[in-house]
Amino acid sequence: MSARLEAQFAFLNEADRLKSVMRATTLCDGSRRENSGEHSWHLALYALVLADQAAPGVDISRVIRMLLIHDLVEIDVGDVPIHSADGKAHSSTSVQEAESRAADRIFGLLPDDLAQDLRALWDEFEAAETPDAVFAKSLDRVQPVIANLQSGGGTWIEYNVTAEQLESRVGVKIAKGAPRLWDWVREKTRGYFR
Amino acid sequence: MSARLEAQFAFLNEADRLKSVMRATTLCDGSRRENSGEHSWHLALYALVLADQAAPGVDISRVIRMLLIHDLVEIDVGDVPIHSADGKAHSSTSVQEAESRAADRIFGLLPDDLAQDLRALWDEFEAAETPDAVFAKSLDRVQPVIANLQSGGGTWIEYNVTAEQLESRVGVKIAKGAPRLWDWVREKTRGYFR
Ligand SMILES: [Ca+2]
Repeated sequence: MSARLEAQFAFLNEADRLKSVMRATTLCDGSRRENSGEHSWHLALYALVLADQAAPGVDISRVIRMLLIHDLVEIDVGDVPIHSADGKAHSSTSVQEAESRAADRIFGLLPDDLAQDLRALWDEFEAAETPDAVFAKSLDRVQPVIANLQSGGGTWIEYNVTAEQLESRVGVKIAKGAPRLWDWVREKTRGYFR
Repeated sequence: MSARLEAQFAFLNEADRLKSVMRATTLCDGSRRENSGEHSWHLALYALVLADQAAPGVDISRVIRMLLIHDLVEIDVGDVPIHSADGKAHSSTSVQEAESRAADRIFGLLPDDLAQDLRALWDEFEAAETPDAVFAKSLDRVQPVIANLQSGGGTWIEYNVTAEQLESRVGVKIAKGAPRLWDWVREKTRGYFR
């Protein structure tokens, strides 16, 4: 009992460090960059509020759980901005291997049963093949687009992003899990890419 | 469809402001105060990881949803530290009325069906009577205790909190939804209250 709680809190206290991992995207008011802890909260709220955009059969409670843990590996690896390194850093083998080692370490802090459950959930998110993971990824991709729209261009300006790059790096993945959502958001982005 | 998405994003963009509401509690490393957005994420993760501390019949997915929205009213009202005003500010009628008006405004941004669902979930959390809400409240009370333990005393020092005040303002509520958890955490707090 006590050893179990020690392990549960070793994980929860380590997770606290995600609040100090900074992303490229700013808050909607542009006042500062967003951290990955508050980003994870916002995404879980996206799932709750945009559940009607998911394909039939998507389990929103599982999507929310996935989004709560999806960025924990950034405690070791940092956030890799989607538009950095000409849009290639995010899917590089070296980043994926580092994230896998981070997952070993961080989920490994938990009692075995929880470690296995949450690691499997993170692996499912990363693989982006199940309907739940595909929808979770769509939300993870759409939230920075909305932040950029709200803050007047944000990382699109910083990284010189074109409409074609937005479509190929971001839009395609939003559309995969939430096609009507991307149709609606794409329209809003047009003003920034003329 | 489009009007519905406009309302969903009016709410999600307004919710972004919770990342700028600062709490009394610091991060575990003491580097800065915590904001209510990242706090809400951490609490949802607490629910996921500490599910085995809940009473039989508690629905953890509902608890997580409750915790994701529980602090949104602070966008208008701010965080009221539990130990401020001699421990009385938190339950004052004026604070509760202001929070209720904030809930009207913020959940009112949503489409009617979602506004009603999430407002009912927030009301349930505030009433703290159902098993789901009682467990959610226990987690909301225990997380700052853990942050204070990690950061070397934190708000206990700032507000001159005694062991008796910790028990009556915090411990009683943790114990109501998670009695074994409070037994374990209380032991850890002893060193700070000699
Ligand atoms: Ca992410």
